[in-house]
Amino acid sequence: MSITSEQALKAVTETLAEGVSRGLKPLSAIVLDAGGHPLAFQRADGASPGRYAIAHGKAYGAVMLGMTGSAQMKRAEDQHYFMTAANGVFGGAVVPVPGGILIRDDAGAVIGALGVTGDTSDNDAEAGLAALKAAGLSGEA
Amino acid sequence: MSITSEQALKAVTETLAEGVSRGLKPLSAIVLDAGGHPLAFQRADGASPGRYAIAHGKAYGAVMLGMTGSAQMKRAEDQHYFMTAANGVFGGAVVPVPGGILIRDDAGAVIGALGVTGDTSDNDAEAGLAALKAAGLSGEA
Amino acid sequence: MSITSEQALKAVTETLAEGVSRGLKPLSAIVLDAGGHPLAFQRADGASPGRYAIAHGKAYGAVMLGMTGSAQMKRAEDQHYFMTAANGVFGGAVVPVPGGILIRDDAGAVIGALGVTGDTSDNDAEAGLAALKAAGLSGEA
Amino acid sequence: MSITSEQALKAVTETLAEGVSRGLKPLSAIVLDAGGHPLAFQRADGASPGRYAIAHGKAYGAVMLGMTGSAQMKRAEDQHYFMTAANGVFGGAVVPVPGGILIRDDAGAVIGALGVTGDTSDNDAEAGLAALKAAGLSGEA
Repeated sequence: MSITSEQALKAVTETLAEGVSRGLKPLSAIVLDAGGHPLAFQRADGASPGRYAIAHGKAYGAVMLGMTGSAQMKRAEDQHYFMTAANGVFGGAVVPVPGGILIRDDAGAVIGALGVTGDTSDNDAEAGLAALKAAGLSGEA
Repeated sequence: MSITSEQALKAVTETLAEGVSRGLKPLSAIVLDAGGHPLAFQRADGASPGRYAIAHGKAYGAVMLGMTGSAQMKRAEDQHYFMTAANGVFGGAVVPVPGGILIRDDAGAVIGALGVTGDTSDNDAEAGLAALKAAGLSGEA
Repeated sequence: MSITSEQALKAVTETLAEGVSRGLKPLSAIVLDAGGHPLAFQRADGASPGRYAIAHGKAYGAVMLGMTGSAQMKRAEDQHYFMTAANGVFGGAVVPVPGGILIRDDAGAVIGALGVTGDTSDNDAEAGLAALKAAGLSGEA
Repeated sequence: MSITSEQALKAVTETLAEGVSRGLKPLSAIVLDAGGHPLAFQRADGASPGRYAIAHGKAYGAVMLGMTGSAQMKRAEDQHYFMTAANGVFGGAVVPVPGGILIRDDAGAVIGALGVTGDTSDNDAEAGLAALKAAGLSGEA
């Protein structure tokens, strides 16, 4: 099972809508497939121009390492040189904080990730989880 | 005047819909703002995983150089070392072929670009122009 | 449908065996998944140390662009600046010659690629196609 | 003396088999030669797509520095700026944790390295050591 283009777009637009309804700062969101390649992205009006890279980095680390943003953050705090090195081998493209959300199929396999940025990392993650639910996808933050 | 997030998303989704209605191969489309930063992106089901990078490269070259994909292609054919050098200073991120479409405001100023990839470069450009029209934006391919 | 680890390994080892039985120079072979990520690799005794990168580059370009090595070579000959630019956006990781073989599922979707290097590009491709057949996979070179 | 292609492949496949028999998460393993160049690699079904880079980084640091993963981790903890600097000169390709295992010949010279990733670093290292023994090679983790 893989994420369809339509599901990916819905997860992204729902994330931005969650940001509005929760009164968060303008959000940006991306969905990557199981290989870490972009399916859909949107940046809300008012978000800073670098938000693609941050959203991508949260989702990319999740897919490539098979670890949620929360788990990556814990690893970075426990063993900072591991996450630094991981980022070295992935070209600096990993952002190890909450807002990197694994998307799993019914069997539990990782089929992609949602990356959310714009507000606090925890608020990013909560908005993303709610959006995935609305899009009929199962997320782990 | 700048492109809104909603306009960007509409240009992208309309491009993919144009691809379907014209019977093209699965398209991918991105809209960048006037600074070359992503606003919205979608990759159709069945498109190869590298299509984000190609779509981005078409739009990025257009914004950064202020030249359409067609103009960049002519330059590459007339003076290949210029486009090679341009890619050197832009980190290899420029794809100088049709499908890189400048978006202009009513005064003619460049406010962003649409990048389209998936079918022939000419078909990509035509689908993108039609999509911009549907999104109420003015494109030059 | 995706390529299993066991199928990938078999395709790789069969490629090296084909090289021996056909009297080719020592081959190296890699199988990438649908996202361009390595599943299995082997380099034969006597092959030069840089063969991983060449094998990877043939398979990676095939997956990321959804084009066989032969099709990429034709594009490089017809429009060299496009393949140069494509390599720019993919970090220089694309080797656009035969020996980059798309692997398709029964429905025709690309599920990965086999990259073969060591002898002439055409011999590389033929050995790879025979190996895929032996591994029960469908290849297009 | 150098590691043969057949020995390298056996070390890799035995590592994945050790992972299964020990009930570990899906493992990925690579063998590099004395120059740090890949000889063989396999990624088990269910492992995340970025595991090639991690496995490579563990083995590459071991060969290039002539230090086991354990010794590199101790150095990273004692003097993090040294390992950061080492990664600078090696292009970010070093992952300094257990699972990077030096392979030595009978005279004690380093002839390559095995890199293992997927479970905890310590479990990775133990599975790799057992696999090297099964492949008739001498490892130091």
